[in-house]
Order: sequence, then structure tokens, then C-alpha cells
Amino acid sequence: MNALVQEIRRNPLLWLLVFVPVVFATEHFKPEAPTLLFLLSVLAIVPLAALLSHATEAVAAKTGDAAGGLLNATLGNLTELIIALSALRAGQYMLVKASIAGAIVTNTLFMLGASFLLGGLKHRVQEFNKAGARFQAGLLFLATVALLIPSAISVADSAPGATFTQTLSLGLSILLIVTYGLGLLFSLKTHREFFGSAEHEEGHEAPWPMGLALATLAGVTVLVALVSEVFVESVQVAAEAMHMTPAFVGFIVVALVGGAAEMASAFSGARKNRLDLSVGIALGSASQIALFVAPVLVLLSYVMGPAPMSLQLWPGAVVMMLIATLTATMLTNGGRSAWFVGVLLLMVYAIFAMTLFLLPPRVS
Amino acid sequence: MNALVQEIRRNPLLWLLVFVPVVFATEHFKPEAPTLLFLLSVLAIVPLAALLSHATEAVAAKTGDAAGGLLNATLGNLTELIIALSALRAGQYMLVKASIAGAIVTNTLFMLGASFLLGGLKHRVQEFNKAGARFQAGLLFLATVALLIPSAISVADSAPGATFTQTLSLGLSILLIVTYGLGLLFSLKTHREFFGSAEHEEGHEAPWPMGLALATLAGVTVLVALVSEVFVESVQVAAEAMHMTPAFVGFIVVALVGGAAEMASAFSGARKNRLDLSVGIALGSASQIALFVAPVLVLLSYVMGPAPMSLQLWPGAVVMMLIATLTATMLTNGGRSAWFVGVLLLMVYAIFAMTLFLLPPRVS
Amino acid sequence: MNALVQEIRRNPLLWLLVFVPVVFATEHFKPEAPTLLFLLSVLAIVPLAALLSHATEAVAAKTGDAAGGLLNATLGNLTELIIALSALRAGQYMLVKASIAGAIVTNTLFMLGASFLLGGLKHRVQEFNKAGARFQAGLLFLATVALLIPSAISVADSAPGATFTQTLSLGLSILLIVTYGLGLLFSLKTHREFFGSAEHEEGHEAPWPMGLALATLAGVTVLVALVSEVFVESVQVAAEAMHMTPAFVGFIVVALVGGAAEMASAFSGARKNRLDLSVGIALGSASQIALFVAPVLVLLSYVMGPAPMSLQLWPGAVVMMLIATLTATMLTNGGRSAWFVGVLLLMVYAIFAMTLFLLPPRVS
Repeated sequence: MNALVQEIRRNPLLWLLVFVPVVFATEHFKPEAPTLLFLLSVLAIVPLAALLSHATEAVAAKTGDAAGGLLNATLGNLTELIIALSALRAGQYMLVKASIAGAIVTNTLFMLGASFLLGGLKHRVQEFNKAGARFQAGLLFLATVALLIPSAISVADSAPGATFTQTLSLGLSILLIVTYGLGLLFSLKTHREFFGSAEHEEGHEAPWPMGLALATLAGVTVLVALVSEVFVESVQVAAEAMHMTPAFVGFIVVALVGGAAEMASAFSGARKNRLDLSVGIALGSASQIALFVAPVLVLLSYVMGPAPMSLQLWPGAVVMMLIATLTATMLTNGGRSAWFVGVLLLMVYAIFAMTLFLLPPRVS
Repeated sequence: MNALVQEIRRNPLLWLLVFVPVVFATEHFKPEAPTLLFLLSVLAIVPLAALLSHATEAVAAKTGDAAGGLLNATLGNLTELIIALSALRAGQYMLVKASIAGAIVTNTLFMLGASFLLGGLKHRVQEFNKAGARFQAGLLFLATVALLIPSAISVADSAPGATFTQTLSLGLSILLIVTYGLGLLFSLKTHREFFGSAEHEEGHEAPWPMGLALATLAGVTVLVALVSEVFVESVQVAAEAMHMTPAFVGFIVVALVGGAAEMASAFSGARKNRLDLSVGIALGSASQIALFVAPVLVLLSYVMGPAPMSLQLWPGAVVMMLIATLTATMLTNGGRSAWFVGVLLLMVYAIFAMTLFLLPPRVS
Repeated sequence: MNALVQEIRRNPLLWLLVFVPVVFATEHFKPEAPTLLFLLSVLAIVPLAALLSHATEAVAAKTGDAAGGLLNATLGNLTELIIALSALRAGQYMLVKASIAGAIVTNTLFMLGASFLLGGLKHRVQEFNKAGARFQAGLLFLATVALLIPSAISVADSAPGATFTQTLSLGLSILLIVTYGLGLLFSLKTHREFFGSAEHEEGHEAPWPMGLALATLAGVTVLVALVSEVFVESVQVAAEAMHMTPAFVGFIVVALVGGAAEMASAFSGARKNRLDLSVGIALGSASQIALFVAPVLVLLSYVMGPAPMSLQLWPGAVVMMLIATLTATMLTNGGRSAWFVGVLLLMVYAIFAMTLFLLPPRVS
């Protein structure tokens, strides 16, 4: 418990935890203030996400490399998963899909770009592990193809019907999860020496005891779930009130909120000239969402949702995912970075954000 | 003749030759069994294709490097060409186009991917000639652009009419054949030292005498033509009976059947850690079909077909070709491979195959 | 003045200056001969463009590196800018956009390809600065994304309306200009040692005095503006008379005319085995038009045009820009070139030119 308190004292981000009880209080006493609830739940999710990723890492560090890698690989985007599950149960499939595509694009462009920029402002030229970046970019590209095909076919060939899309989505989801599993086997087991071990060098601080880590994991997961429900309920009315389109909220706001904790790690790695860490977090998180979180949500929609959810995105989202993957592939290809590479990534992100912000609401 | 018998004894694939007379007998006595005829003709084409490629190589080996290279470059995909010609004469342009696009995609993704996977399961990391892979990928990319433009323009700009598409296809076909010729000049003559000589090291076995090779070439070509006719006649009814869409049959089944012989060589090269050979066969065959076989078929359609054939594919096929080319470019860029690279290529192929299999028939 | 006369004597291209007075005379005495006026104005713009680029370089050489770089970066495509401004004032937005997209595609494919081919015919293998090529390709890719997004969204999501497109275009234009400025900061200031100094080594000839350079710059700018007006007025009627589509004229003819002077420099650099120079001119000019000239025209359309102009291109142009950028990225990635690389680039250009030439007029 001491470790937890120390962590909170050291990390100013965690002071935002005070908003967790505030959210619940506000929901109880002022349930008819969606904009306020939306803002409060955003502020509450950020520190919870940070705690969650910390607890996951602590458990992973204890359980040894293989199991730890697996744990990190499945729970690493727990926040995104929980938010999406809340939206799934509420039947808000549009929000689920926008938040998935948005998380992929945000991690690939914004998290990576800001890491390159922040690192590059301090260090003239930074190097990182090419093999790792290419591996993640390859996974991301595969996922983009899988998400592109149902949309491309249904646009190009005049809507072959919902049954086709649904069966295809189910099959693609299974393919993606299998590929993700094989990718873990490759990077954690058969060819692990190619991928460095940047991720585990981090913990110079005193490690959390296992009991605390597990308890935190369980407790915070429940809290995130509860806050997410408030978030999902309030987000659409709040978005309208704040003149934001649902596409912008799902794609940009939810993605930034859900990824805040990882961003803090990625940026700090870049400033310390450990760009391997930043690239690993940014692209690894994007490929995890694409190859694991998204297909798991499709499978879970059969159990938890009001109806099966497909993998089919609206065409604009597919174009953005494709561009994000191509951009990241091109710019990480050489294994070197300077500040302007970060600017290029951020500008592509800014183009997307601006387009979504200006898009008339009826479209998305 | 002895050499031929020895070849047949050594290569179990050639035992399938027994199905050649069976096809003709079945066609004579049971012409109303299309599914049976389809399956038998598939089984008969596979060994004939192997013999054909063997005979071509034997003639090429005798005639010296430049002429041999040219011969290999024009007759290397003779099976695909003969099958497509049978379909062309029958006016089945949809099948012709699907089998061309399918052969390109299958060679680029399945043949290359399975080579990487099979090689990678035996050898930890494999290297291959980057220059060769880039050259072939460049040719393929050009062909993809040529096939994409008529479709992109006619989709985007609301069908400018058949005359435009036909004239454009004719012009593009000539451009592609010229580029193919210049590519041969570059890789076989002016800059040949960049491309290794992997292809001709193969023949440790006793070479065939010229007369036998030429006789085999002629005889087997006739047999393939006869069996192809049975195949083309039966394929559509059989596909319906077996619940396969015409797109799936053209794209996947015909491509796998036509390329069976080359696949055997490519896979055996990969197992022997001679990945240059495998990459050369897979990408070389794909670019040959795209830059030589396809435009030759367009030109021949003016002479042999019921009407001129255009280069315009349906949009889904263009998207798949583009993705296949991009995937191969990205993954062969570094000149190194491990088993997971093969998995990625095969997964992209699986996504395509699954989509085409599930696609409702009316669409294609 | 002597320097100017010497320059004219040495450079046969400048003998075409004789057509400048001929244009004005013809316009006065035979205003109803658009095809003649079109041809004469083309012949007159070519030497004026050469003089203009010479004067800009002379001024840039005098004003020191940073200011000179900035000057080159803003005035380097003055001819294209002036032609586009004439079209803008005449409200011919289709021509403006076609000439912008055409200049980007022509510089990326034709100028680069012909440089590679001409250089490669003389030198077996040529090397060039990878970092520079990647930097320019990155800028071009960003601009392509910016031009693609409004079109992609409006195609995909059923026309969200002109207000959206216009506001988005304004925002994107500002993003592009900011990125262009940051790119100059990066390549001329903070990381200049990565980009060589190929551009300024050229001037072995006696430099022009500052007064002459400035006077030439001012005088020729006025002449180009006057000739451009004749060109813009005559181009459409002339195109019809010569059976060329407006898309072909804007995309191919205007781009070749406007870029003639730069092409002369790029080709001569390639023949002298200084490919850095050629790649720098070709890709640098393309990215300058995309990130500076195009957005400046959008901003100026609010002041000078009959109505605000958007960045939205017709879909075919966006596809061509995207393909051109991808092709250049792929083929300059390795930093080495041989003649066949030039052939590939020129063939992609030929595919585009042929498509635009054959396209029925009503489409564009």
C-alpha cells in the first residue's frame, strides 16, 4: 500500500484520481449535466489508465518474461478495451469502431510523432531498433488490410449484404487473433534477440509487491469500468453541446483519453534518448488494438452486445488507418529520427483531426 | 525418351499424368458430369505444367544465356497463358481477368509467403538478393498502376464509355510489353551482375537432349490446351455445384492449379536455403504475367476472341493487386526473412481468399 | 547588362526570347487565332522561365545562405505561380488545379525519371543523397494526404457540402505552409549538414551583379505575367482545336512548359553525374508547389479570385498524385539509380499522359 501511495506522490498525473469520486458524486446528484459528466469522466479516466498500466507492468515483471510478455500483450490496452466494452454493451457500435480506429491512428501518428518531436528537440539525431519498428508496422499493415477489405468490397461492389459482412468479420477476427498469437511467439520466443529488451529495463524504481499489483489491477479495472459507463452515456450529448462531431469525439478525444498513460511513458522514453521504448509503446499499442482488442470486441459482441458487431468501418476511417500505417512505415523504415520526422507525423494527425472536427455531423 | 521416363519415376508429382487420359475418357463417356471433369482436369493440369516448365528450362539451358533467358521469360508461364487462351476463345473474359489477377496475387502472396515460411521453419534467418526483389517489385508496381488506372478513372469519373477503356487498354498493353522488354535488357544484359545467377545453378541432374526437350514442349503444350478446354468448359457449373463463387475459382483455384509446378521449385529452393531462387520465381512469375501474359492476351483478343478484351478489372481485384504489391515491396525491402514474414504474407492471402469465398456470387 | 547578353549568347534556349515580342504582336494583330497564340505563348514562356530561375539563383547567391535558400524556396517556382495566378484571376479554377497537380506529378515522375534515364545512359550506377530524397518524399507525401482528404471524404461520404470543403481547404493550406516553413528551418538551419550543398556548387560562371539580377527578376516577372495571360486565354480553345482534353493540357502541357527551365538544369546535372542536384530540383520543386504554391493560391483566391478556391481535386488527379509520390518514394529509397529506374518512372508518367489524352472531354 505504501508503494501505491509513493507512486501517487511522485507522479503528478495521479493527483487527478481525486476526480474519480467527483464523477460518481456528480452522477448521483446532477445526472442531467452530460457535458460536466463527460469532462469529469475524462479527467478521471486518465489517472486510472496510468495506474492500470503500472499495475499490469508490475504483475508482468513478477511473472517472468514469457508470461509477463503475454500479460502485457493482453492487458496493455485494458483501458481502451473497457471503454469499448461499455460502449458495446450500450449498443453504440459507431463509437466502438471510431474509438478503435482512432486509437490505432492516434498511437501511430500522435504518440509516435510527439515522441520523435520531443526526443528530437533534446537530441540531434536518435536511433532506434529497425527490426522492431518493421515488425510492428507489418502487423499494423495486415490489420489495416483486414479492416479495409470488408469496406472496400462493400463500397466497390454495391453492398453485398449484412450476412456476408458479418461472416467475413468473424473469420477476419479469428485470423487477426491467430496472427497476433504467432507474432507474440515470434517476438517473445523464437526470434526475441532481434527485438532488444528495451521494455523491461525501465523499472529502476522499487517494484510493487505482487499482492498490491493484483489488487490494484482488479480494483482499478472496476473503477475504469464504472467511469467508462458514465463517459459513454454522456459523450454524445456532451459532444453536441460542445459542437464536436461524434466522429471527432470517438476518433480523437476517446483515443487521447484512453492512451494518456502510455503517452506519458512514450514521451519520457524519448526525452531520455531511449526511442526504442517510445516506438515500441506507440506501434506496439496500435498493433495490439488492431490485432487483439478489435477482433476480441467483435467476438464479445456475440455474447454481450445487442447484436453482432462487424469489422466494417466507414470509408473515411479506413483511408485514415491506411495513411497512418503507410506514414509510420515510411518514416520508421530507416531506424533514425530527428525533430522534423515528428512534425511530419503530427501534421498528418492534424489533417485528420481538422477534417473530423469540421465534418458535418450527419455524415459519420 | 529415357530421360523423360527417369524424370517421371523420380518426381511423384508426375504420376498424376495418369489423369490426362482419364480426363479425355471421361469427357467422351460422361460429358454431363462437370464437377468430375473439373476435378479431373485440375489433377491432369498439375503434372503437365510441371513437365512444361521442365522442358522450357531444358531448352533454355541449351540455347545459351541470353536466348535462354528470353525463352524462359516468354514461355515460363505457358500454362497460365494456355488456360487463359482457352477461356479467351470461349469468350469468358471474366474468367480470363480473374485468373490473371489471381495468378499475380497468388504468386506474390502465397508462393512467396509459403517459401518464406517453409524456409524459415528450417533456417533461422535467410538472406536474399535485395536488388532482384526490388527490380521485380518495381515492375509489378508499374503493372498494378496500369491495371488500376482504367478502373480508377471509370469508377471515379462515372464510366467514360467502352471505347475509351478499350483504346486505353490497347495503349497500356503496348507500354507494358515495351517495359517488359526493356526490363529483360536491363536484367539479362546491361546490369546482369546485380541479379545473381541463382536460376541456372539448379541443374545438377543430367540435362535433357534438345530433341526430347522440344518434342516434350510441343506435345505437352497440345495436351495442356486440350485439358484446359475441358477445364474452362466445366469450371463454372462445377463451381456452382461446389458452392464456390466464380471470383474464388478464377482468383484462387485456377491460380493455384496453373502455378503448381513453379511452387514446387520455389518451395524446394527455400528449404535448401536458396531463397534467391524462390523470390526470383515468385516475383518474376508475377511480373511476367502482369507485364507480358496479360497484355499479350489483350492483343490476342483482337484476333482470337469474340470481341476485344480490355485491361479493366473489377475494383476489388485492383485493390487486392495493389495490396499484394505493396505487401511484397514492404516485406522484401530489407533482403532478410524469417518465418513470421511468411506468415504475414500468407495471412494477407488468407484474407483475400476468405473474402472471395464468402462473396455472394452475383457480385463478381 | 553584359552578363545578360553573354548568358543569352551561351544558352540556346534563350534564343526563344524572340517569341516574346512575337506573342504580343500576334495578340494585337490576330487576336482571333487562339491555336497560334497558344503555341507562341508556350514558346515564349520557356526562355522567360529559364531567365527567371537564373535571376532568382543570382539574387539568392548574393544574399547569403539562409536568406538565399528562403528566396529560392519562395521564388523557385515563380513561373508556375504566375501562370496559376493568371488562371486564378480568370476564374479558371479547373485549370489552376490541373496545373498544380500536373506540376507535382510531372516533376516527380518525368523530371526525375528523365534525369535517371539520361544520367544512367552515361553512368552505369549513380548514387545520390538518400536523406535529401527521403525528406522531400516525406513532404510530398504529407501534401498528398492533405489534397487527398477533402476528395476522399467528399467521395466516400456523399458530398458534405461546399462550406465544409472550403473551410477545410483554408485550414489545410495554413498547415501546409507552416510545415513548409518548418521544413526550411530543418533543412537550411538545424540539420543542414544532412542535405549536402549540391545546389550552390553549380555556379562556376561569372555571377551576375545584384542590380542586374533584381532588374531581370522584376522585368521578366512582368513579361511572364503578360504572356501567361495570353496563354490562359488561348489554351482552352486551342486545346479543343488540337483535340486535346483540358485535363491533358493542364496536367501535361502547362506542367512541361512551366518546368522547362528547371528540367534543363536537372538533366544537365544528371549527365554530369551530380544526381543530388537533379533529385533536389525535381523533388524539391514538386514539394514546393505542393506545400507552398498550392496553399498560397488558395489564400490568394480570397483576395484575387471571383470566389474562394478549394484544395479539392477531381479523384483521378488525387490517385495520380498518390501514385507519383509512392513511386518516387519507392524508387529513391535506396539512394542508387540505373537507367531502368528512369524507365519505370517515365512509364508511370506515360500511363498518366495516355489516360488523360484519351479521356473524353466532358469528364474532367
